[in-house]
Amino acid sequence: MTHLHPDRLFPASEPAKAIARELYPEVRDLPLICPHGHTDPSWFADNGRFSDPAALFLTPDHYVLRMLRSRGLSYDDLGVPRKDGKPVAKGRDAWRLFAANYYLFAGTPSKTWVDHSLNWAFGIEEELSPETADAIYDTIDAALATPELLPHALLDRARVEVIATTEFALDPLVHHQKMEQDGTIGRIRTTYRPDDVTDPSRAAIVENLQKFGEITGENITTWSGLINAHRNRREFFRRFGAVATDHGVPTANTADLSAPEKQALLDKVLSGRHDADDAELFRAQMMTEMALLSVEDGMVMQMHAGSRRNTDPLLMAERGTDLGADIPGTTDYVNGLKALLSRCGNEPNLRLITFVLDETTYARELAPMAGYWPSLMIGPPWWFHDSPQGIRRYLDQVVETAGFYNLAGFNDDTRALLSIPARHDVWRREVCGFLGRWVGENRITKSTARDVARHLSYQAAKDAYRIK
Amino acid sequence: MTHLHPDRLFPASEPAKAIARELYPEVRDLPLICPHGHTDPSWFADNGRFSDPAALFLTPDHYVLRMLRSRGLSYDDLGVPRKDGKPVAKGRDAWRLFAANYYLFAGTPSKTWVDHSLNWAFGIEEELSPETADAIYDTIDAALATPELLPHALLDRARVEVIATTEFALDPLVHHQKMEQDGTIGRIRTTYRPDDVTDPSRAAIVENLQKFGEITGENITTWSGLINAHRNRREFFRRFGAVATDHGVPTANTADLSAPEKQALLDKVLSGRHDADDAELFRAQMMTEMALLSVEDGMVMQMHAGSRRNTDPLLMAERGTDLGADIPGTTDYVNGLKALLSRCGNEPNLRLITFVLDETTYARELAPMAGYWPSLMIGPPWWFHDSPQGIRRYLDQVVETAGFYNLAGFNDDTRALLSIPARHDVWRREVCGFLGRWVGENRITKSTARDVARHLSYQAAKDAYRIK
Amino acid sequence: MTHLHPDRLFPASEPAKAIARELYPEVRDLPLICPHGHTDPSWFADNGRFSDPAALFLTPDHYVLRMLRSRGLSYDDLGVPRKDGKPVAKGRDAWRLFAANYYLFAGTPSKTWVDHSLNWAFGIEEELSPETADAIYDTIDAALATPELLPHALLDRARVEVIATTEFALDPLVHHQKMEQDGTIGRIRTTYRPDDVTDPSRAAIVENLQKFGEITGENITTWSGLINAHRNRREFFRRFGAVATDHGVPTANTADLSAPEKQALLDKVLSGRHDADDAELFRAQMMTEMALLSVEDGMVMQMHAGSRRNTDPLLMAERGTDLGADIPGTTDYVNGLKALLSRCGNEPNLRLITFVLDETTYARELAPMAGYWPSLMIGPPWWFHDSPQGIRRYLDQVVETAGFYNLAGFNDDTRALLSIPARHDVWRREVCGFLGRWVGENRITKSTARDVARHLSYQAAKDAYRIK
Repeated sequence: MTHLHPDRLFPASEPAKAIARELYPEVRDLPLICPHGHTDPSWFADNGRFSDPAALFLTPDHYVLRMLRSRGLSYDDLGVPRKDGKPVAKGRDAWRLFAANYYLFAGTPSKTWVDHSLNWAFGIEEELSPETADAIYDTIDAALATPELLPHALLDRARVEVIATTEFALDPLVHHQKMEQDGTIGRIRTTYRPDDVTDPSRAAIVENLQKFGEITGENITTWSGLINAHRNRREFFRRFGAVATDHGVPTANTADLSAPEKQALLDKVLSGRHDADDAELFRAQMMTEMALLSVEDGMVMQMHAGSRRNTDPLLMAERGTDLGADIPGTTDYVNGLKALLSRCGNEPNLRLITFVLDETTYARELAPMAGYWPSLMIGPPWWFHDSPQGIRRYLDQVVETAGFYNLAGFNDDTRALLSIPARHDVWRREVCGFLGRWVGENRITKSTARDVARHLSYQAAKDAYRIK
Repeated sequence: MTHLHPDRLFPASEPAKAIARELYPEVRDLPLICPHGHTDPSWFADNGRFSDPAALFLTPDHYVLRMLRSRGLSYDDLGVPRKDGKPVAKGRDAWRLFAANYYLFAGTPSKTWVDHSLNWAFGIEEELSPETADAIYDTIDAALATPELLPHALLDRARVEVIATTEFALDPLVHHQKMEQDGTIGRIRTTYRPDDVTDPSRAAIVENLQKFGEITGENITTWSGLINAHRNRREFFRRFGAVATDHGVPTANTADLSAPEKQALLDKVLSGRHDADDAELFRAQMMTEMALLSVEDGMVMQMHAGSRRNTDPLLMAERGTDLGADIPGTTDYVNGLKALLSRCGNEPNLRLITFVLDETTYARELAPMAGYWPSLMIGPPWWFHDSPQGIRRYLDQVVETAGFYNLAGFNDDTRALLSIPARHDVWRREVCGFLGRWVGENRITKSTARDVARHLSYQAAKDAYRIK
Repeated sequence: MTHLHPDRLFPASEPAKAIARELYPEVRDLPLICPHGHTDPSWFADNGRFSDPAALFLTPDHYVLRMLRSRGLSYDDLGVPRKDGKPVAKGRDAWRLFAANYYLFAGTPSKTWVDHSLNWAFGIEEELSPETADAIYDTIDAALATPELLPHALLDRARVEVIATTEFALDPLVHHQKMEQDGTIGRIRTTYRPDDVTDPSRAAIVENLQKFGEITGENITTWSGLINAHRNRREFFRRFGAVATDHGVPTANTADLSAPEKQALLDKVLSGRHDADDAELFRAQMMTEMALLSVEDGMVMQMHAGSRRNTDPLLMAERGTDLGADIPGTTDYVNGLKALLSRCGNEPNLRLITFVLDETTYARELAPMAGYWPSLMIGPPWWFHDSPQGIRRYLDQVVETAGFYNLAGFNDDTRALLSIPARHDVWRREVCGFLGRWVGENRITKSTARDVARHLSYQAAKDAYRIK
């Protein structure tokens, strides 16, 4: 099985390769800590079977879809649902098209994840290709009907110790309520992502804020009432295991306005008369408010900054969000985080984990900042950068200034349940490879490498997210 | 000949080195596809002899000149012509100065190209130095008088299958007209580069636009007439083999204005009352217009963005353009290309190849964009980045997200005919080295590496430029 | 002593490792040229003993302090003095805390420097740890009382040929005056850093400018008088060995205003009515003025651009500057240096050395600019980037375009006398490793590598700073 080599991703040359091979077995089977991701909570609440192979591997995976589109394939032919309900390709047809173009993924993390998942979950040894497409489809389809492929069985098999889903502030958490009754909260947790009530660029923002007031019983027309609503809702989310909040923002901007300025801004947003600058300022102020609430309640704050969302209006009109048209842009953390950090960056209870799409900030901004502020940690390589080369650039640029212990370990940030072990495995292999190279250069001892490998593979994420 | 080692640029260590050495012979002798460059069409029309060695290697090579200037040598002493006609150094004197300072080029691609060219074209085995300067000069000078050194013989020897020159919109293409009669169009092609009529920051823009109207018979005082003039001229260029257009722009900005806005902008430009912002907006709108014409006629659109031209006013006043004082700056592709891509980014007939001077955009913007938009491909490393390390940074940062098949292969982009084989050779060696490392890390199979090496060395450029 | 391996930092694999090991002994013991740094001139004037180990290694080292703070340790417990005079931890207690947390520095240059210094200066073979903390403290403390640890003895032992300190324009240079009498000026030199009179964002700027007029006897209320004051003061500094000026600026901006504009700007600053934009413009104009004075007097101009200073207001209020809260930001050299270079960038007497915190400018801006302008050289990796990976990224990105001979060699830029040999050693090892890799790839000959290694380790700095 040359496409899934046991030594894959390890350094090519000795002695680094041998050292990586020595380190890897010590971390390979450690439990998985998954404190940030986008799996569907209904899977874990209902523990039902997954539908067909295409629905599992193809249509929900924006990494895979985007690559195929980039080479001229149509989303109709790949079975991606349309808003207008017009028919799109069926599972097996879409799967065959995927297989016929699978060569396009040479060298991409998508291929690594799919190859790994096919092998790990279904025991498939052959590489996906036009020749193997149907047989692999049938193998998967048959396996999906077995108990071994049900969500909880998969969590067990993958040694998932903790996994967090992500829900908006207005989400009623019905699946988590069921899990509470089932006693699975703790292994499975929600995350508080209040973008639906903190981002005034959303069309429904006024309506959302009104709902937010209703479900929390707070008067969201005053700033203090709005903050109370968050305070209340954060507590509700914590009941379902939430240890963290998450914030998807186009920039890293934060603000620290006076009380009258805040109220005036809220008034404007509630009146629907706000413009793009107002929306940016509201988001920026909300970041600082969330930090102050974290100082109160100890929830870990995550900032996912820098994505330009929905850059293709045609795709958006035809099929909606999260299908590949989100593109990173430059991000300024030094000026952006200034207001927040000046306000509460030295608070012992604050923890802010940053996720980065603009790699130029690793060495220039984030590593120096995380190597100074007690509240700041650097999240793992994110999105397009969660790849072997991305991890190498990350470690290359952050470790010397931030050290190993200001890193938040790994998280998979995925919608694709089956890819979770594959993603953690790539991280662990790359960490071992990185450390193998540094031991090979006599920069750290093998004993230190062993400690760091275990830390970054497991404990770092638990510590960073304060998971007991 | 230690300075031109047969294994140069291959990975230092095994097993990557052996794999690269195994891949390289399969691509080394593939024909050269040169779809973008700046060779002089009169060479191919007239097939006359090149003049002296300095005029071949030194005075037209801004890479070489700039380095010598940076260490205090004067352009007078290097024989670079002056606008005021004052005498400058003669060929052999300039050559000796070049040789005496050739050690400055250690580690630069310029040295690789010169070393390779001296050996390939003239059979010279010695390294250029003060000691060998005269003998090498004499060898070159003698060889230039032989038929083997005539332009077409050099194309044959270099296995050039296709080579494109680049001409402005107003260029009468007299050399290409001669080549049409000679039957060499097809192997040699022009490229439509309408900067002379799309860039209002040029002093002669009004005059140029008027000429443009005259030679096309269109009324360029209306926007639709102006576009018709382009439509007409593009057709004229296609008669001489053009498969592509090219656009040198300081930023990646594009625009999609309303008809009245476009006409108002054109009126302003034609009146000569436009300012720098107007010029930028005109260029930006013209990029979208060119894309729309590509949708019509299928010509491949090339965008060379990000150079700050003529940053030394003294040089500009003394000797003119293209002598080393052009410096890259930051470029924003996400926001810049938004208008164009929103307008026609999903059109199957559009192909836009971007060339990059701001490497921070590789992983952050270009690879994600090329990995989504069917119309977008990433051009090879350009200008200062067309170097071994530049190629490594490029492949490191684009492949995982864009894959290998959204890359436009290689082109040499050179004015220096003799350096063409050297440049393609560096690319092929680096591709083999890159793939050798990845096979060595068991990330791709050797069979995949073989396919990719051949693709990136030859077919990718033909496909990208739609060369039949 | 596995934590300080004789082959540390060399490439892990052959043949690069063997080549690096062959090159290194040729440069290891070359004298140290230290043309830029922040050691305390009183050490060299008085040649007195250093106080306790914590005061030597811990409290003045912002790299070490910031990392400990980032993991939640308090500056009080680390013995960092407070402005309010409240007591902080004593030396040995702070030292124990440092030792207990020394594992945090795994993989950082700080650890390399401390490990090397403990061994080099005190013969300590054990790694710092909770177990060894007291013994190492005692060893250091005892050694500090011996003549071998006095400043001049340390300079001798470290083979320091030249070392420059850095003083503000208003500094009376009393220590250097003593050194002049002692005959040690020449080995020890000052550097003219006039930020105290060129940066109007300083609270005391008006007062400082008035003092500047007094000590120079010039009328600083006119622009020409102000420039005369600098002319005068630069001459005074040269008396004490100064070969260079240094400028710490938030951006790389320069300006070239008309005489009336300059006078109006000065009037505004002297009246105290200037805002942030005025301050920036004043600094920008002053950079060009300093360049013009360098054209006159031949002093080498250093620009340290891009640091956002004092980003933590709490730290600033509690303890002051230079304690870890300075963070790099983006820098634009192409547009920033335009005014200065257009004015005098071709002057043979001008030399401008740039230091970089924004690594994205290496390949995009600085290497192309230094590879063109005769006046421009690239300084060594600075601050957070003065590290093994930082040096690799630097050489990777500058050499191909700027060559080896537009680099200013190395300088240590440190306040920590004992770390000077360690820092030069890291540079020399990394240079040998870099060259070893390139020889291993057959890109340069071993003979060239030998020349370059010696040049970058010693002569480059002497040449760049015009030290006779």
